[in-house]
Amino acid sequence: MIKKESGDLEISNTIKRTLSIILLLLVVLLSIFVFDDLVFSLLIMLFISLGLNEFFNLIRSKGIDVYKKLGILIGLIIPLSIFLRFKPTEEWTLLFILVAFITFFVLQFAKKDHTDAILGISTTVFGVIYISWLGSYFIKIKLLPNGGLFIIFILLTTKMADVGAYLIGKKFGRHKLLVRISPKKSIEGAIGGFLTSIIFSLLSKFYLSDISLCHLFILGILVGISSQLGDLSESLIKRSCNVKDSGRFIPAQGGVLDLIDSLLFSAPVAYLYIMAYKLYMVP
Amino acid sequence: MIKKESGDLEISNTIKRTLSIILLLLVVLLSIFVFDDLVFSLLIMLFISLGLNEFFNLIRSKGIDVYKKLGILIGLIIPLSIFLRFKPTEEWTLLFILVAFITFFVLQFAKKDHTDAILGISTTVFGVIYISWLGSYFIKIKLLPNGGLFIIFILLTTKMADVGAYLIGKKFGRHKLLVRISPKKSIEGAIGGFLTSIIFSLLSKFYLSDISLCHLFILGILVGISSQLGDLSESLIKRSCNVKDSGRFIPAQGGVLDLIDSLLFSAPVAYLYIMAYKLYMVP
Repeated sequence: MIKKESGDLEISNTIKRTLSIILLLLVVLLSIFVFDDLVFSLLIMLFISLGLNEFFNLIRSKGIDVYKKLGILIGLIIPLSIFLRFKPTEEWTLLFILVAFITFFVLQFAKKDHTDAILGISTTVFGVIYISWLGSYFIKIKLLPNGGLFIIFILLTTKMADVGAYLIGKKFGRHKLLVRISPKKSIEGAIGGFLTSIIFSLLSKFYLSDISLCHLFILGILVGISSQLGDLSESLIKRSCNVKDSGRFIPAQGGVLDLIDSLLFSAPVAYLYIMAYKLYMVP
Repeated sequence: MIKKESGDLEISNTIKRTLSIILLLLVVLLSIFVFDDLVFSLLIMLFISLGLNEFFNLIRSKGIDVYKKLGILIGLIIPLSIFLRFKPTEEWTLLFILVAFITFFVLQFAKKDHTDAILGISTTVFGVIYISWLGSYFIKIKLLPNGGLFIIFILLTTKMADVGAYLIGKKFGRHKLLVRISPKKSIEGAIGGFLTSIIFSLLSKFYLSDISLCHLFILGILVGISSQLGDLSESLIKRSCNVKDSGRFIPAQGGVLDLIDSLLFSAPVAYLYIMAYKLYMVP
């Protein structure tokens, strides 16, 4: 996978990147405003299962035998139980995780080789928590009053931080950030992404008019940091599995994981802040 | 580690095994009836940190770089937050897990070698869930009305199932259960442990007089199955790391993990049943 550094290809990649983001935003917007919570939740579950599939393929490329089908199944039960608002959620979540735990072990009992059993079970559990549990916070946010607007807020601030980091890094990047994890990222790009997130967060005052600029400013900082940590973390996972793109889902964007990595961290962080200050309250 | 199969050693081992269980029960009984919830919770936290320490050492023996200190620290925050009854628990738990996740990744960023990064992070997260989160259910149970009696119930039924499986397997064991995971265990022993658990569960009517024999019977079945699955699961982990005992904590019992393995599965299962049928209600 050699990448030509010619100007034409660069422009073409930037256009593709932007177009694919716009397309994705349109799909999500449609699911928020035209359809109901069910369609949105199904869309999230689709992304979760695609992301899990990619993650488990990455781990398998390291020669570790993960529980792919069962992992995806359990990874779908978590968002489903959140959508159905199981009460008492805590006990039900416990039940699922317990059943999952015990099932992974029992399945392993039947296998012949137990050399890497602990690695197979650990990475399966990790994948479910990383992608399904963190990803499910999108459904939690959607179910809040004004949840749709918060979803747009998170998508815009996170994805614009990605684009901002990319464009500013491309133009002003001089100092490498973490060359062993993501060789193309620069400190200048990271700062650019951070500032872009704050700017788009403040601009959200137009559609989140009840939330003070102070809260939006802090949310911008939180999203600006967490989204980039999410991006780097997924790069680390790929690096650890010796691949460049997590899959081939969208042109010039790589796989589903490359698309959602920053969102997996920024959505729960934003949710926590929204809940802590009861920003979802309609006055 | 060759074990002599002479009769003397066998008897000596059985006595040591029984004495160490009695000693442990005495310590726990003392902490339940003489001291308060704080002392009991500290005792559980002690076992959790010792168990985590052993687990992380097992994983390190496979050459995987786990986050031992941070893993133990986070593993202690979970039982502490349950003891302090943080509200809203769900959001706080999320915060801890998110912070843990992000910290593991950020720590990894600073390292030079990322080859097994995903394995180090996954097994650390797994250890915290397996030992700390499952183990914390002892504190949840203790905080219920009549919690102390339920703790005794779980300790007695689980540990007597262990002893029953051991003794009956020793006397009548002909058919091997899972020779690749735990070569000494037999199907006869497993059935014996299962029946022992039911008998001790029914006998608990003496101190849990408000709970019907029907509920005690079902609890006996659940503990009889889950405790032995817990035992086998820990054997699997040890097998996967090529060791026989998880450590040297108690004579003839192996490490802390060998002592608590069956309890880690039976306690949450019993808790779920107790909550589902509100058995903790004092009439």
